[in-house]
Amino acid sequence: MKSLSILIAAMLVCTTAMAQQALWGGQDIKSPEINANNTVTFRLQAPQATKVEITGDFLPTQKMETPMGEFDVPGTAELTKNAQDVWEFTTPAPLAPELYSYSLIVDGVNVTDPNNVYMIRDVASVTSVFIIGGGRADLYKVNDVPHGTVARRWYDSPTLQKSRRITIYTPPGYEAGTAKYPVFYLLHGAGGDEEAWIALGRASQILDNLIAQGKAKPMIVVMTNGNAGQKSAPGESERGMYKPSLWEETRMDGEFETAFPDVMKFVESNYRTLETKASRAIAGLSMGGFHSLHISKEYPDKFDYVGLFSAAIMPMQEGVTSKIYENFDQKLKAQFAQKPKLYWIAIGNTDFLIQANNDFRKMLDDNKYPFTYYETGEGHIWKNWRIYLTEFVPMLFK
Amino acid sequence: MKSLSILIAAMLVCTTAMAQQALWGGQDIKSPEINANNTVTFRLQAPQATKVEITGDFLPTQKMETPMGEFDVPGTAELTKNAQDVWEFTTPAPLAPELYSYSLIVDGVNVTDPNNVYMIRDVASVTSVFIIGGGRADLYKVNDVPHGTVARRWYDSPTLQKSRRITIYTPPGYEAGTAKYPVFYLLHGAGGDEEAWIALGRASQILDNLIAQGKAKPMIVVMTNGNAGQKSAPGESERGMYKPSLWEETRMDGEFETAFPDVMKFVESNYRTLETKASRAIAGLSMGGFHSLHISKEYPDKFDYVGLFSAAIMPMQEGVTSKIYENFDQKLKAQFAQKPKLYWIAIGNTDFLIQANNDFRKMLDDNKYPFTYYETGEGHIWKNWRIYLTEFVPMLFK
Repeated sequence: MKSLSILIAAMLVCTTAMAQQALWGGQDIKSPEINANNTVTFRLQAPQATKVEITGDFLPTQKMETPMGEFDVPGTAELTKNAQDVWEFTTPAPLAPELYSYSLIVDGVNVTDPNNVYMIRDVASVTSVFIIGGGRADLYKVNDVPHGTVARRWYDSPTLQKSRRITIYTPPGYEAGTAKYPVFYLLHGAGGDEEAWIALGRASQILDNLIAQGKAKPMIVVMTNGNAGQKSAPGESERGMYKPSLWEETRMDGEFETAFPDVMKFVESNYRTLETKASRAIAGLSMGGFHSLHISKEYPDKFDYVGLFSAAIMPMQEGVTSKIYENFDQKLKAQFAQKPKLYWIAIGNTDFLIQANNDFRKMLDDNKYPFTYYETGEGHIWKNWRIYLTEFVPMLFK
Repeated sequence: MKSLSILIAAMLVCTTAMAQQALWGGQDIKSPEINANNTVTFRLQAPQATKVEITGDFLPTQKMETPMGEFDVPGTAELTKNAQDVWEFTTPAPLAPELYSYSLIVDGVNVTDPNNVYMIRDVASVTSVFIIGGGRADLYKVNDVPHGTVARRWYDSPTLQKSRRITIYTPPGYEAGTAKYPVFYLLHGAGGDEEAWIALGRASQILDNLIAQGKAKPMIVVMTNGNAGQKSAPGESERGMYKPSLWEETRMDGEFETAFPDVMKFVESNYRTLETKASRAIAGLSMGGFHSLHISKEYPDKFDYVGLFSAAIMPMQEGVTSKIYENFDQKLKAQFAQKPKLYWIAIGNTDFLIQANNDFRKMLDDNKYPFTYYETGEGHIWKNWRIYLTEFVPMLFK
């Protein structure tokens, strides 16, 4: 018995050169620890560190001066060292249900929490995450419900002349059945990619949970890469493991919208889809909201459900000559003449894009184009986009 | 033009609260940087740190005393601070082609590299990774070749009485075609899960590349979770984002092998599979090698290809009463009576399991059971398992 345990231990130990750390001389502590009252304790064993801080989106914000003006950024808090050389910080108050991100700052260096294996990449940064359950945040958790399938695959875009990576959620029961399903195209923002809604947006958990609760129709969710110049998320193409840049990939030049029929064609010829306007939805956040606006008006007979989440409604870039952005008023008129069932605009009341969205809503009102408006607190953040997804999905295909 | 740039910048900046870090006050440095001669430079901006080290599997090993004896573990190297307060270390010699893992140690705290978004979780640790291309390691890279689909989905295991998560690779062309494919069941080791071969094993890249080169037949690769007590990888079930334990999940009690027909039934009823012995392969690393040994002999008419990668061939645990482990000699005789086309044993020459594997090979020889043996240098590490996968796959289904 003992010799077997030792063999098993050795297997584990040797599994990688790195695993030892967790066994001996490693950190046998829990961080984050969600306490019974929903305060959260963070810990780090760092006997040689002089200062350990934490920054995260559950801490009061502070002002940050930047070349582009003043921004609210998450504040910091100091961890204090206990008698066992373990640094600790407990939130002074319980945290509300939410998915939270944080980093530790060890002697000035911003790092992920080595005791927390759950991390999410957002553009060029990786942060540690945890979820406080309850209320809407229970939709972000993996629950004991039937789970859909998440497939990463590649489609050909003749328009962009490349093969491109795409993430597709099919609902529980899809594979075993013969039914056709409605399709929801869900678009990411600037700096994002085909992983964003799955990782930061908890899209598969939200869909699984809403479907299990009978609040959403089973549907296929298509998460494509909205950066027309890009084949895939960083690390997933022959560009290799390059350092992602916040700037490099973002081009709002009409190419993605122009090539969007390639995506639809791929989906409709590879999945059992209902191919009617009433069975198609499109929504996106920020740049993806801009894309959803333009795609839905460009192909006015295709989408009965349109969601603009904190949409980047903005003047066209000088020098952009895409036909997508020509005759805007005319195309929008054609779209609303076909009476989309839901044109849904959502934004946070401190979002830097709120004025542009207010102006857009006024224009829609002036033209008597019907839409639904949903306003939340706070700004241009994933917390809001997860909320919008949980609100939007139950309204689809009904 | 400028105002648009500012809006786009604001979108990026605000995308998450954390993104600012990368823009202002953040680390505008490259780490790791693979130099032209394949030396690698690591950098960290850490003006307040007293000492910055690196540990990784490209550094000379050192001995570590543990309660279980002495082990070779990766050594460390010190970074030195340059005039810009950036700590740096360049490997003294070019690195051979390989996927490498490393951590930085900031004032004694082992952390991932904040300038490298590419990380892999192995059991309870997350490390930063990079690839030096060339030779066999080019198979680990995403190349400009047709890509298969990787689906994460759930199957029902009536035997284990749970729904369980599974990762399935289908080759390029699978969805568009009507052909039936052979199936390769690829099993992880102790502490691993249904993500291990995809993340650490680079299985989808290896398959894509070998298929594109004409060296492997297109096949379906099934990566199940070999911990019978577990539904899924950590974070992917209703257990939530718990801290993974090296010990908790590992049970070699016959349950996984007993329930294996559930996996096969699921795969064969959900995919276009060739359902013959000549069209099925099974292989695994460490505990997965142990599983492959027992599954292939338990169901002797099912698998013509068996791969034992650093297999955990070991005495049965006292108290385990599974029928799987009864009548071993008889079952192995029945398996070899059916003449498997390939019984492939691979191990590193410093693996702590080499004696057990040598003894097993002697027993096979004594019984005149044919097998193929492939020995590499080094021990019980992912480097070897990736090599074994690249060697094993081209021999299948031919």
